[in-house]
Amino acid sequence: MLRFEVKATDPAGRARTGLLTLPHGTVRTPAFMPVGTAGTVKGVWPDQVRASGADILLGNTYHLCQRPGAELIARFGGLHRFMGWDGPILTDSGGYQVFSLSDLNQITNEGVRFRSHIDGQWIHLGPESATRIQNQIGADIIMAFDQCPPGQADRPTVEAAVERTVRWAAQCKAVHARDDQALFGIVQGGVYHDLRAACADRLMEIGFPGYAVGGLSVGEPHEQMVAVLNELVPRLPADKPRYLMGVGMPRDLLAAVRAGIDMFDCVLPTRNGRNAYAFTATGAVRFRNRQYRDQDIPIEEACPCPTCRRFSRAYIRHLFLAKEMLGPILVTVHNLWFFQRFMSRLRDLIPRGDWATMLSEFPVAGAAAGDPTDDEVLE
Amino acid sequence: MLRFEVKATDPAGRARTGLLTLPHGTVRTPAFMPVGTAGTVKGVWPDQVRASGADILLGNTYHLCQRPGAELIARFGGLHRFMGWDGPILTDSGGYQVFSLSDLNQITNEGVRFRSHIDGQWIHLGPESATRIQNQIGADIIMAFDQCPPGQADRPTVEAAVERTVRWAAQCKAVHARDDQALFGIVQGGVYHDLRAACADRLMEIGFPGYAVGGLSVGEPHEQMVAVLNELVPRLPADKPRYLMGVGMPRDLLAAVRAGIDMFDCVLPTRNGRNAYAFTATGAVRFRNRQYRDQDIPIEEACPCPTCRRFSRAYIRHLFLAKEMLGPILVTVHNLWFFQRFMSRLRDLIPRGDWATMLSEFPVAGAAAGDPTDDEVLE
Repeated sequence: MLRFEVKATDPAGRARTGLLTLPHGTVRTPAFMPVGTAGTVKGVWPDQVRASGADILLGNTYHLCQRPGAELIARFGGLHRFMGWDGPILTDSGGYQVFSLSDLNQITNEGVRFRSHIDGQWIHLGPESATRIQNQIGADIIMAFDQCPPGQADRPTVEAAVERTVRWAAQCKAVHARDDQALFGIVQGGVYHDLRAACADRLMEIGFPGYAVGGLSVGEPHEQMVAVLNELVPRLPADKPRYLMGVGMPRDLLAAVRAGIDMFDCVLPTRNGRNAYAFTATGAVRFRNRQYRDQDIPIEEACPCPTCRRFSRAYIRHLFLAKEMLGPILVTVHNLWFFQRFMSRLRDLIPRGDWATMLSEFPVAGAAAGDPTDDEVLE
Repeated sequence: MLRFEVKATDPAGRARTGLLTLPHGTVRTPAFMPVGTAGTVKGVWPDQVRASGADILLGNTYHLCQRPGAELIARFGGLHRFMGWDGPILTDSGGYQVFSLSDLNQITNEGVRFRSHIDGQWIHLGPESATRIQNQIGADIIMAFDQCPPGQADRPTVEAAVERTVRWAAQCKAVHARDDQALFGIVQGGVYHDLRAACADRLMEIGFPGYAVGGLSVGEPHEQMVAVLNELVPRLPADKPRYLMGVGMPRDLLAAVRAGIDMFDCVLPTRNGRNAYAFTATGAVRFRNRQYRDQDIPIEEACPCPTCRRFSRAYIRHLFLAKEMLGPILVTVHNLWFFQRFMSRLRDLIPRGDWATMLSEFPVAGAAAGDPTDDEVLE
């Protein structure tokens, strides 16, 4: 169901490149997974996602189980066929969303009962149902149902979340019914190194073909995230893929790769793209800004993406001002290419551990680039 | 600037095929022009417009002159380069919009003064400014500034509109300053055959390389539109292209082609596409309808478009329910292909006058297909 080979390692560090072979194809790691929440990478055709260099994408169980529903997806032969993407897919378990998005929320040892954001119906997600639903959706990699505490949670709250997460992970593994899907465990533990270590150890006792790090990039400072990874990652098995969930900005990606992470997912390229925010090697181009009104140059001169090959900054700004769909589409595509180009250069440079070249080509990865403010977020 | 060759004619009627050669390429006629109001066919990349079979598209002077402005477009080398479409373009004059869209509106013999729909500034469009603006925008074909009276206008109103339209057409020709753009005259006259004939005769005295028919498809019955065309078109020069503005549904296109029309534009494929309305040879697929929930078939089985080659009706319906951009995109692309496939079959069958085959392949063109209701229209 899954084969992972480490191909090269940073001579002076923990970063590594690898190949992760799954039923629907091979993923070059470190890999960035674009997010296709509801069975589509927003505004982009599957062929365009593929052309950006993405080997694998992510779907959200929380959204898909409510609409169109896992039964319908299963009847259509699974998510790959339903959405017209024949490459690998990973689905999250819905754990993050039920704890962060829904109008809660009755939490028990069996899972979470929450109201649908679509029709207000009560829905239950727990280790058993989240696993069964992911079996129906049919992704190559599925995730254990975990409890992700808020970023500022105190130690007792995080301890309780780790307890539940470990117990639920075992239940997920027990109920998981498809050999062609790899079930990953998720390490919780907040910013408490000992809780992270204990959670990792107990998950490894249960045994999974891959391990994810959840509960980071939830508001903690960059340095704290890096510190957690530097402590935690060496405990994880070297021969299994490691996935940092929901990350992130270029600086976070670079630091996490250096800490030994192999896989990422994040809404930033797509969400920011819809919001007129283009990533470049030297920082953001925010198309709401008047300075781009007359610029007869592409988003990035050296970028080979279909947007930069054909369209000027002035044109893209015009599209956003005119509320034309093509604006979000063009910047989303550019951002998808940017993130894949960034990962591709990382994969090139890891065998030499050449971080100086990486930072010279992508200065943005060395700067504390500001996150987009909330009022810019459309999704 | 323009070469038009009639290649074949319906042996028993007025329909004809031809080739219209313009600075940016050759247009196969009868031709359907997708509408790119604000410098983009909504939701679709230029390459995708081209792949649908479109040879030429239409831009709206009313919108473009307000945003991004004709000066900016001119500085960027014209609309072709600005929007990344290297094929032929036609711009309308803005006449239709200033009379139908704007919060009016001071009409004088010099044109129309109206409030911008963007910033409320007063703008003037008249024969001279509309022509100068179109010279700046740089389309292959530009249109005279005309007065289009409402569909139910009485005879004196239409007479006055014809007077203005003819006088303005002469002024447009006088001020038109670019040899590489063909300026078409527009015949008004409502449903009054004698006014249409008089308008056409006076425009032909002025002399234009092509003639458009305006003021149809503004609410009159199909049969009345056909009657006007059957009277009017034979008066127009046989060696010049004839363009029916703002039409239309498949039945209207077929009837107008049989009356001898060579060119069309309409927002239907794009506007209806955004609104979950797919055209098929046998009628509409309206994705809001629950019947499509479980349908594991494409919009049209025989359709070679990228949407139908990959996506099911159930998936497309899901996208619309989830308010995903890809829903409008997929149906827009299908509709663009549908309209081009329809025109392509017309061009195939005109030399034999084989309307029976046309109607057997496209039954929708024989039926009085219902227009979408207003509440379905998103644009």
